[in-house]
Formats: sequence, C-alpha cells, structure tokens
Amino acid sequence: MYSFKNDYSEGAHPRIIEALIKCNMEQSEGYGEDIFTARAIKLIKEKIRREDVDVHLLVGGTQTNLTALSAFLRPHEAVIAADTGHVLVHETGAIEATGHKVISVDVEDGKLTRKNIEAVIEEHTDEHMVKPKLVYISNSTEIGTIYKREEVEALSEVCKKHDLYLYVDGARLGSALCSNENNMKIYELAQLVDAFYIGGTKGGALIGEALVICRDTLKKDFRYHIKQKGALLAKGRILGIQFEELFKDNLYFDLATHANNMAQILKKGIVDAGYSFMINSSSNQVFPILPNKLINSLEKKYLFLIWEKIDKENSAIRLVTSWATNEEKVLEFIADVKLYN
Amino acid sequence: MYSFKNDYSEGAHPRIIEALIKCNMEQSEGYGEDIFTARAIKLIKEKIRREDVDVHLLVGGTQTNLTALSAFLRPHEAVIAADTGHVLVHETGAIEATGHKVISVDVEDGKLTRKNIEAVIEEHTDEHMVKPKLVYISNSTEIGTIYKREEVEALSEVCKKHDLYLYVDGARLGSALCSNENNMKIYELAQLVDAFYIGGTKGGALIGEALVICRDTLKKDFRYHIKQKGALLAKGRILGIQFEELFKDNLYFDLATHANNMAQILKKGIVDAGYSFMINSSSNQVFPILPNKLINSLEKKYLFLIWEKIDKENSAIRLVTSWATNEEKVLEFIADVKLYN
Amino acid sequence: MYSFKNDYSEGAHPRIIEALIKCNMEQSEGYGEDIFTARAIKLIKEKIRREDVDVHLLVGGTQTNLTALSAFLRPHEAVIAADTGHVLVHETGAIEATGHKVISVDVEDGKLTRKNIEAVIEEHTDEHMVKPKLVYISNSTEIGTIYKREEVEALSEVCKKHDLYLYVDGARLGSALCSNENNMKIYELAQLVDAFYIGGTKGGALIGEALVICRDTLKKDFRYHIKQKGALLAKGRILGIQFEELFKDNLYFDLATHANNMAQILKKGIVDAGYSFMINSSSNQVFPILPNKLINSLEKKYLFLIWEKIDKENSAIRLVTSWATNEEKVLEFIADVKLYN
Amino acid sequence: MYSFKNDYSEGAHPRIIEALIKCNMEQSEGYGEDIFTARAIKLIKEKIRREDVDVHLLVGGTQTNLTALSAFLRPHEAVIAADTGHVLVHETGAIEATGHKVISVDVEDGKLTRKNIEAVIEEHTDEHMVKPKLVYISNSTEIGTIYKREEVEALSEVCKKHDLYLYVDGARLGSALCSNENNMKIYELAQLVDAFYIGGTKGGALIGEALVICRDTLKKDFRYHIKQKGALLAKGRILGIQFEELFKDNLYFDLATHANNMAQILKKGIVDAGYSFMINSSSNQVFPILPNKLINSLEKKYLFLIWEKIDKENSAIRLVTSWATNEEKVLEFIADVKLYN
Repeated sequence: MYSFKNDYSEGAHPRIIEALIKCNMEQSEGYGEDIFTARAIKLIKEKIRREDVDVHLLVGGTQTNLTALSAFLRPHEAVIAADTGHVLVHETGAIEATGHKVISVDVEDGKLTRKNIEAVIEEHTDEHMVKPKLVYISNSTEIGTIYKREEVEALSEVCKKHDLYLYVDGARLGSALCSNENNMKIYELAQLVDAFYIGGTKGGALIGEALVICRDTLKKDFRYHIKQKGALLAKGRILGIQFEELFKDNLYFDLATHANNMAQILKKGIVDAGYSFMINSSSNQVFPILPNKLINSLEKKYLFLIWEKIDKENSAIRLVTSWATNEEKVLEFIADVKLYN
Repeated sequence: MYSFKNDYSEGAHPRIIEALIKCNMEQSEGYGEDIFTARAIKLIKEKIRREDVDVHLLVGGTQTNLTALSAFLRPHEAVIAADTGHVLVHETGAIEATGHKVISVDVEDGKLTRKNIEAVIEEHTDEHMVKPKLVYISNSTEIGTIYKREEVEALSEVCKKHDLYLYVDGARLGSALCSNENNMKIYELAQLVDAFYIGGTKGGALIGEALVICRDTLKKDFRYHIKQKGALLAKGRILGIQFEELFKDNLYFDLATHANNMAQILKKGIVDAGYSFMINSSSNQVFPILPNKLINSLEKKYLFLIWEKIDKENSAIRLVTSWATNEEKVLEFIADVKLYN
Repeated sequence: MYSFKNDYSEGAHPRIIEALIKCNMEQSEGYGEDIFTARAIKLIKEKIRREDVDVHLLVGGTQTNLTALSAFLRPHEAVIAADTGHVLVHETGAIEATGHKVISVDVEDGKLTRKNIEAVIEEHTDEHMVKPKLVYISNSTEIGTIYKREEVEALSEVCKKHDLYLYVDGARLGSALCSNENNMKIYELAQLVDAFYIGGTKGGALIGEALVICRDTLKKDFRYHIKQKGALLAKGRILGIQFEELFKDNLYFDLATHANNMAQILKKGIVDAGYSFMINSSSNQVFPILPNKLINSLEKKYLFLIWEKIDKENSAIRLVTSWATNEEKVLEFIADVKLYN
Repeated sequence: MYSFKNDYSEGAHPRIIEALIKCNMEQSEGYGEDIFTARAIKLIKEKIRREDVDVHLLVGGTQTNLTALSAFLRPHEAVIAADTGHVLVHETGAIEATGHKVISVDVEDGKLTRKNIEAVIEEHTDEHMVKPKLVYISNSTEIGTIYKREEVEALSEVCKKHDLYLYVDGARLGSALCSNENNMKIYELAQLVDAFYIGGTKGGALIGEALVICRDTLKKDFRYHIKQKGALLAKGRILGIQFEELFKDNLYFDLATHANNMAQILKKGIVDAGYSFMINSSSNQVFPILPNKLINSLEKKYLFLIWEKIDKENSAIRLVTSWATNEEKVLEFIADVKLYN
C-alpha cells in the first residue's frame, strides 16, 4: 500500500536527520534559547526580508494557532474564518477552548474575500455580539487552493480599515508559495499580514512550525503564552536545528516544489484519463472526481481519503503529495487510473 | 564550559536517533495511530503490568499536565500541590489558564503528605470555595527528593477516602525509581495512582512524555483533549519510535541509573570536600551549599543554577545530571571543588 | 413614545413589588438559603410535578445559560443551536468564553428538528472535531415561534439516542406555554428535557430566572458553578420572594397570557390592515412587514426594532408585548397602522 | 433570633424601595442605557470628582471582580492578593475560571503593603512564571481593617513603578470610608487607583455594585465583557434607580456610618466586659474573642459566625452590622455578654 493520504506519513528529509545527528551530543541552552534556534530565526528573517519581526518556533499547527490567537485577542474578540478553516473544523474547538468564538463564513473555494469580511463586520453591531478582530486564512487552503498576492492585499486593506488582524495558517505555506499559480513572494506576504506561520511538519521536518509576528503590538510577552500553552520545548533546539537546515539554502522551497510537481503530475494524468476535479487546486492536494468502482479498486493499492460523495456513482477523493512522494508511485497510480477506462 | 544546568542540554540517546533513522522513510498513519506508537504502548503496559490502562504519548511536561488536569476536572475543582510543584511555580499559570485553581501547600522537602491533604480538605468547606479534587505530586520532586512506596500508599489512601484523584508528574520518574533510596516498582506505582506520566524528554528522548491513565472514569474521550490542547502530533510516530526504543529493553531505566550515579558521585565528592547540602536528594539533582567565592570560580568552567542564598557567604547551587553526563567532567568538577579548599 | 421594543421596559408586576416590600426588613439567610427561595422552589416543583428535580434561582438569561452549559459540559463537548439561538447570536460569545463551541444550524423558523441534530452528529466523526453534546433550544424562540409537544418529544428522543443533553432556554417560556398554538404543559416539558429555565425577567419579575435541572448526573455541585460564575446573590432572597409570588397561584401564566393576548390583537389588527408577517408567531413577539414610509411614521410615536429589510420598500419590524403592555396603546397602534392606508 | 451574621440579611433601605416603586411602570431602555443609570453615573462621578472615569453598574461582588479582572488582564497576567482576599478565598476560583492565577501573599491584618508587592515582583523573573499585573485589595478588608490614605498612596506608587494595576474591591467601601480611623476621601481614592467598585449590596441596596474604571487603557469595550460574563441586566434600570437614590444626597455614607456606629457600640461594650479582639477593626465587622461557653449561650439568641478557635476555651466570633442593624438589639447583645461575667 502506498499512501497519498497526507503529507506527514514519513519522518523527516534526510538532511534534517543528518543535522539532528551532527550536533546531538553538543550541549545547548534549553527552551529555545540555544544557538540553533537563534541561527534559524536569523535565516528566516533574511528570507522574509524583515529584521523587525519576532519569530518563535513551536511544535504543531493547532498548537501554533491556539497559542497565537489566544495571545492576540481580548476575551470578547472573535476570529473570522472560512467554513473550511482548520481552526473551525479540525481543531476540536481549540480556539473556543481559549475563550474565543470563531465566526464561520460560507465560501466555495476555501478562501475569504474582502466582501466576506465586510459582511461580518456589518452584522456585528454592538456589545451583545462578539467583536470580530482577527481574520484567519490558510495558504494553501484546506482544499488546496492558494491566495494570490492581490487577494491578500485586498484582505490586508480591509483589515487595516476595520482594525482587524490578518493571520495566515501556513501549515502548507511552502506548497502555496511554490505553486505555479502563485505570484507572491514570502517577503511580500510578510509585509501584508500581522502574523503567519511557516509549516515545518508538512514541509520536511519531523515537527515544527515557525510563527512570525509582524505587528509590533502583538509581540509583547509572547514567550509567556508559548509556555502557558505547553508549547515551550525544553529541547527547543530540535526545532532550531530543523529550521536552520530548511532555511540555510533553498531546501524548504525545493521540498515544496517537489510536492507540488508530484501533485501536478497526478492531476495531469487524471485529466488525461478523462476525469474532472472537485476544485481546481495548484498546490500539493488534488481532489479528482472518480467513479466509485475505480476508487474501490485504487483502495486496494493506495491509501487516500474519500472526500465527498458527488453523485450516486462518483466521489471526490483527496490525494496529497509531499517532499517524500515517490515519482514512480505517482506514475503507477496514474497508470492504474488509466487502466480502468 | 560544561553544563550541569539541566537534564535537557543534549539531543537524544544514540539508540533513539538510530531508531528514528531506521524507519524514517517508512510510511505510517498520522496522529499517534501508527504501529510504532502501538508497540510502544504495548511495551509500557507490560512494564507497568496493567493491560487495562490507557497510554497516550504527548510532547512535553507542561503540556501533559495541562491536558490531563483540564480533562480530569470539572470547572469548580482544584488541584492540590506542594509549594515547589512544577504546575504551581514554573508553568506560567498553565493550569489556571484552563480554569482551575492550584492550591499551594507549604512543605519543606517538596513532598505532600496525608496530613497536608487532610488539612486542605478541612479548610474547603462549601461552595464559596473551590473543591479540591486532584492531588498533584512530582516524583522525583523539583528539589530532587523522591517518594517512597509507603508515602505514595498513604496518599493513595487519603485520596480514596476523600474521592480525590492522585496524579504523578513523572518528568523525572526514571531517576526517582532508579534512586538507591527508592523502594517502589513502576508497576506498584501504577496500582496506587489514578494517572501518571513517564518523562521522556529528561530521560533520553528528544521529546515525549507517556501519560498513563489508570482510573477508568478518566479515560473517556481523552484524545479529544489531546487534540484540543494542540498536543496531537501529525507525526505522532516520532513519539512512538522513541518510547518503543526506551522500553523495548531496560534502556529507560539504564539511562536514569547513569544519571543518578553521576549525581551520587558529585554528591560524595562534595561531601568529601567538606560541604553540606540544602536538601538530601538521591536522584539526579543535588543542591550543595558552597561558598560564593567557590561558586564564582566554578562558574568559569561550568554552567549550573544558583538556587538560593543561604547566608552572606554561601549559596546553594543546583547540579543536574542526565543520561548524557560525562563522568570525566563530573570528576573534574569534584577536583575543582576540592582544589578550592 | 410608547415602547413595543422589548418585554423588559418596565419594572415588575405590582404584586412582586408588594411582596418585596412586605418582608423587606425581615432577616434571612444569604446566598439563596433563605425561606423565600425554599418556598419558591417548592412551588415550582409542584407546578412541574417533579419532586426529584433541582431548582436554582439565578439573575439573568445569559448568566443562566453560561452557568448551566459550562457546568454540564466537559471541555471538548459542544452545543448545537439554531442559527437564531440566543447563545449563538446575542451573548457576546459567553459560551465560547467558558471554552465550548456552539455549532450553528441553519433553520428557517428558529427551531431545531431531529433531522438537524442527526446531521450534526453525522458530521462530527472523530477527535479532530468537537463532540456535540447538548442541544440548546429556545421556547418561545428568538423569532416568536414555539415548539409543540411532539416536536420536543422528537428532540428528546434523538437526544436520548445519541446521549445528548436537551436544554431549553425559557427566557420567554411563559409566553410559549400560554400561546394558543401550544399543546404542551410545563410538567410535560419537565419530563422531556434535561434542564430548562423559567424566565422571570421577561415574565413580570424585576430580575430572575429559575433553572430546573431534571437529569440526575447534571445536578452535582451545581451551587459551586453558580458561585464561580458570579451568579450567587448575597441577597438571593430577592429571587425567592419574586418566584414565590409568581408561582403561588397562576400569576406567572396569567401575565404571559396577557402578553400573548396583546400580541394577537396587534397581529389581527395588522392583518386586517392588509399586511403580512415575516414569520407566523403565536407568542408575544410579532414581525409584521410594513412599508418603510409607514414605519417612519410609526417611529414618531412608538419604539420598536426594525428587524430586517424585505425589499426596497418594505421592512419587517419586531413588536414585543409583555405583562405590562397597555391595551389602549395597542389599539392606538393598530389605528395608526390603518390610518396609513 | 437576631442576626449579626452578615450585612445582607435584610432587603433594601426603605428609600431604595420607594424609588423602585415610584418609577415602576415607567418605560425605559434596556441594558443599562436608561435614564436612571445615566443619572446614577453622573452622581457617582460628581462624588468622586472625576468626569473622565467610566462607571458601570453590575449585580454582585464576585461578578464585578471576575468581569473586571478578566477584562483587564492578558492570559499570562496574574493577580496579587492578600491571603484573606475575597477573590482568593471565597469566590470558588472565579478568577482562575477566567484563566488567571491569583498569587497569595501571607499577611496578618488583611492588608497588602508596598513591600509585599515588591517581594512578589522579585520572585517572578521570567516567562516560566506568570506575570504579576494587578494588585487586588479590599477596603474594608475581609477582617474589618481599613487602608489609610498613605497606605493606598504607597501601593499606588509601587504599582506605577512596576506597571501594575491597582484595583479595590469595595464591597464594604462605605464602611471603610466612614470609619473613624479613615483619612481618605472617595475622590482621593479615585485618584490613586486604576479601578474600584462601590458596593451597593452591603450598603443598603437590594443588589448592585458600581464599578469605576479610572485608567483610560482599561475602559475600551468594557460593556462587551459585562455582557459576556452574564452581568448585563435586561432591566439594568433597577441598578440605576438604586444607585441614584444612594448618591443623590449622602444616603450611601449615612447608611455606612450607621453600620459603623453599631459596630463600635458592640466593640466598646465587649471591651467594657473585659474581652479582647482577634484584630483591631474600625469598620462594620468586629471579631471579639469570647469564652466558648459564652458563645454557646449567645448562639441561643443571636446568629453570628464562629471565626476561629483561639485556644481550648476561647474562640473569635464575627459580628457584622449594617444599615439595618437595630440599636436595641446591639444593646441587648452587650447586656447578654456582660451578664455572663
């Protein structure tokens, strides 16, 4: 069985493992005050071309979201998210558990627009309702779509206008930024948003997400929040070592590019076989609509999620690729799809 | 500079690293539903001789404490802890952040007794006060002391009597159970308490703590809580791989024994040099009282914490050893202490 | 200006005021342990024909909801509510502030059905999502509709099947139960649900809501929660005095009947004048659709809310009546509407 | 039985009741936006000689404390309180339930000093511990002592120095300010602290506390917090009506003076009878140390709390007086004490 189920089925990229081995017996400070973390942060700041941001290395995506959002918001302030947003759907109420409502916005493509934000603002008129304060977007989104620069610019503008924070869940940021559809550099993103995180777990690391806080007022005392939420690792070094390796050259983006390439080969192959897609995605997730019979047959050799029923005879499935995806297996999968015809 | 500052200055024991490498490119399920985790849990259950417990692998100590305690308690229920307790002092209010008061009990040696618990119960008389519900102890404690079996039995009894949960923070459980003063087996502990965790981070792993839930009523839906608190790793496998390695033979306890041995060599050497200790500890932390001048001189070669001022000319320092502590450095340290005389 | 804006514009029914005066200088126990409260609870239990319930008197609706729901639920458990639900829309995230997500269900008439609940249950499949646990309904609803007995029975059944709690926000319970459309007695309701509250604030009292907990497992330690949420009045007697007066005969229901009658006169008058309604409601709230010009003219003499824009020239307004509504003013209002034609 | 058990055994002062009756059928806006509340706030601002403060009327003391403190603090910030502090002892963990630790300081007389604050600040060194941010004092304290102006000035200074908020729980503020030991005017207090509340429940009202927010940065969006915590009354008018009556002349202070006078008569009588006191208090609470036999005999005619055991034969009891205390009963009590000799 080969898995296209997610982008965290394997361990870490070999270079990451080597980096961990290399300094394994070297002593360092605890709690992220080690030199590896310092160097990783320096490299990230260079990549995003901002010296004035704060960068913190955390362990996982839900943890990063809940730590950041609960630190940024006052008790009555709420989050705005697309109805597909990870914080809304797949974090077991982690944000609500810190006291904040997440306002759901119905969208088709996983993406929020200026108009969505303005509608929410208009509806929330007084102190009998929560106060919308932070716009949460995922890039790439949970259904593989990406935000173009002009779309983030529009959100940034509407957020400034209404004094909202703009936050990007970048669990798959590498894939978004390396998509052939993308026209935004990471340093441009860092100019447009108040905070974002660069996903390591799905980007080649064992674990780790790098949270970048761009807005000055959100920086204060952030390490207190990391500690309070159980996210401050005694051996914070292992996050530093990994992010140093990912960002000391282009490794982070190279791995994302590989993932995207594998997804695009899948996509093209499936198109060639005559099938369409639930959504047009250009990142490392593709959602082909296939006959249930074909799906049943593929399930004997491959692992993947059945995303949703389309009609009686067809369903959309989710195929996810990663830095570790084997091209041979991709070609084999396509061959198996074509064989069915 | 050689560090005796803590037990998390290095990476992981080489066998752990090897285990991670070995299966690195193997695909597995996410979120702790992988075979490594399953095998690790099986091994832990064997070690504690209970098939009926639930074992969950989490990332760090504060995270494990806050996830467990907030899952176990209803909103009005409180924790009882010694005034040195980690949850009380060094977790940035993590437990309070989940809504629960931690009641502090003044003690001398870091340990709670039956009498302490009964005093707290007596004081909390009605619904105008919180309801004490969970007794939190650390073994070994934050100041290196350990609980003997009869002490845990006494606590277990008083907890049963008053319908309290007994919870053990085992960040340094290996060191406690391998102390030459100890008379309690891990499987005996597992009979006496409602939940405890086996510390990996300070016990040879890169990260990871194994929470064992013994009481049936505390087990339900626990994975929801792990996820909600941001503690469910996508690559949960890395916790499984490490705990499998630690528990597939006696590695976990061998490493703790090494740490303890190094501490006892330190202790004996310092005694020989004519100094006394702030507290009599038999685990991997020792707290010698040294002249400030000697401390200043040691600080040029070694890293350690100055724990507290004893009088004008003397202070207690904390020396921590670990699985990674180098015996040569220990001997060198003693020589340096003796040299001063 | 005469107000149809809400049902809390005046003080309390004269009998309530008299009751407060009568015992004003009498000394009593604090915190709801007084004899007035004891008698009120006894009367309520008689009215609902259950001796085995727990009754607590609290101050306001949002307070009652947040105290009850946070006491009933474990951290990962969520509330299901109609999209119009008060907890969802108009309580400033009070439930989320206690850590719980409120799942919104789109409905047309303010009411949840068995089908709605089952759809939510089906969607929430595992520990990556919150666990739906409590069904929140308002009776009458926020838009004036009421639940018939068979509808509550259906909800009760589906809740039992999926081990959910069924909770009724009865801020306007009197009006619901006295509606000419209603076919459910208060003692029947008390057999079908796990907890509900009987609204006093909108039912003739100065303040006060009587929470009835029917399910045994939800009763334990409830006074701790009341105290913790700031809802335990030192002079709890003032709640007891009021509810004793409301329930010592039929006063509570008589007042609700008056409110409903006034609303039905309004409704009939507006129908006679040729207008229709946004929703067909049989309680003390009516939502006529009127020409904007007429609305403008009515606004010079009356206070009411403009509920929503219907089309370019018409809007729905909300008219609310209460125990205090003056029939003359109602007739005057109708005359003013008719005059416009 | 006559009760000296607390200062909330009766209803409200007759003038308050009359005020409630007088406007009972008058219609007004809901949620504290009525004219009674507006007038009450105006009067309070005049009394404290500050136009620039925000005043909010809430229902009870615990509610006011939890609403204010949770609104003022970020998640990692903690409260400093004397070990007798109401928030620490008698609010069922209400502050912790909003996520914040309350740091306990051992004191003898219920009062915090500059030195206490500095010791706490010194101990809390980094992000592994909570960040002390708000100093909570009660005036009068829970054991009847009061803060003199110079004491509050010293606290104010140390708070400014360390960027802490100074908050006064004024459940019995009237009694403190009318004590014959007091040398601070209410308008002086309002210059020294960041927020305080003026207790109505124990000061002659049925219910109600007036929170005064002096520091600009703490004012924003406060009504959201009131609503979220369930403290925004639909009939907010009943708070306004009461506070208007209390502050339209000197009623509030006259009632406190009566309470204090009654306490001082008790005190003098007991001194004359040859007994001493647990603490020297000048407000409406006195704590005589009496022989257990005398206590037993008094318990047949009077209600009061036995505060603590002093030795085998003597205990301290608490006697509380109020605006409603009957002088005849006070004299009778003294006579009964003297009779015993």
